[in-house]
Amino acid sequence: MENNSQNDLAIKIVFDAFKSNLKRASELLHELTDEQLSQEIAPSKNSGHYIFGHLTAIHDNMISLLGFGNSNYPELEEIFVKNRDKSGLPKTDIVDLRKYWNEIHQFLLQKLESLTPEQWFEKNTEVSEEHLEKRPHRNRLNVVLSKSTHLAYHLGQLVLLKKQLTQLK
Amino acid sequence: MENNSQNDLAIKIVFDAFKSNLKRASELLHELTDEQLSQEIAPSKNSGHYIFGHLTAIHDNMISLLGFGNSNYPELEEIFVKNRDKSGLPKTDIVDLRKYWNEIHQFLLQKLESLTPEQWFEKNTEVSEEHLEKRPHRNRLNVVLSKSTHLAYHLGQLVLLKKQLTQLK
Repeated sequence: MENNSQNDLAIKIVFDAFKSNLKRASELLHELTDEQLSQEIAPSKNSGHYIFGHLTAIHDNMISLLGFGNSNYPELEEIFVKNRDKSGLPKTDIVDLRKYWNEIHQFLLQKLESLTPEQWFEKNTEVSEEHLEKRPHRNRLNVVLSKSTHLAYHLGQLVLLKKQLTQLK
Repeated sequence: MENNSQNDLAIKIVFDAFKSNLKRASELLHELTDEQLSQEIAPSKNSGHYIFGHLTAIHDNMISLLGFGNSNYPELEEIFVKNRDKSGLPKTDIVDLRKYWNEIHQFLLQKLESLTPEQWFEKNTEVSEEHLEKRPHRNRLNVVLSKSTHLAYHLGQLVLLKKQLTQLK
């Protein structure tokens, strides 16, 4: 196998992992009712509502981080990233988060699908050109991988809101 | 940037993500006492003990999946993968799991560090050569990435055993 196709393959592997995590998360969020999402994932821990908002904020921020434009809902960051669940700040409604979630990912996935291998290895917008030479792994591929890991981490928590104990896979 | 170095970079990105997740997990497991690990992550959900054994079994199995030899503790699979937490099967002691955990990862990381880029793209042992041509992404890089995601998922659960609510990152 030549290097060029291995390179494409590595991108495919990472992008597929992100899409697969996203599919699992979207299906779970669809399955959970607003009432279930309002509950804490464990006593005195974060609510499903907060984690849903947190993931929506982080993924909305991927739009600017990946150089695809401005985030659509920058107000989410204050509520769901910079502050804690019990901060007292009013939370964006779950029904709105559901809408934002679909909208953000439709846009993100379309943009990501259209990237060339070269563009996957371009820096993200938070890294200067000079910095990139020292840390060449701060590129789009890395951003998508780290957000994929982040999503899996919180997916393991959101799944606790389901009624049935499911077998580990 | 030429394709060859991009290719190496993609491997580095995935391997670094795995090592980073592993470091977080090992630090958390070190921080949690045996007593904390014995508790359920949420009422009626899996215990920390079970999840720890599950992760140990899955990572032990990576040894054979990656073609590095036989798993060291195949008996873990019956207890922590094929059966549920409340199966009634006696569980391997947490003190032993801690020992296995360190041993397995010392071996795994050493083997992974020594792989060439070509070897990262070789198939894993569960895929036939014929099958690999149809699904070329079933290689070592893919195995490490999928186990990294799996680890992050359960890390999000184990962290609930900590006493303090921590800010989401």
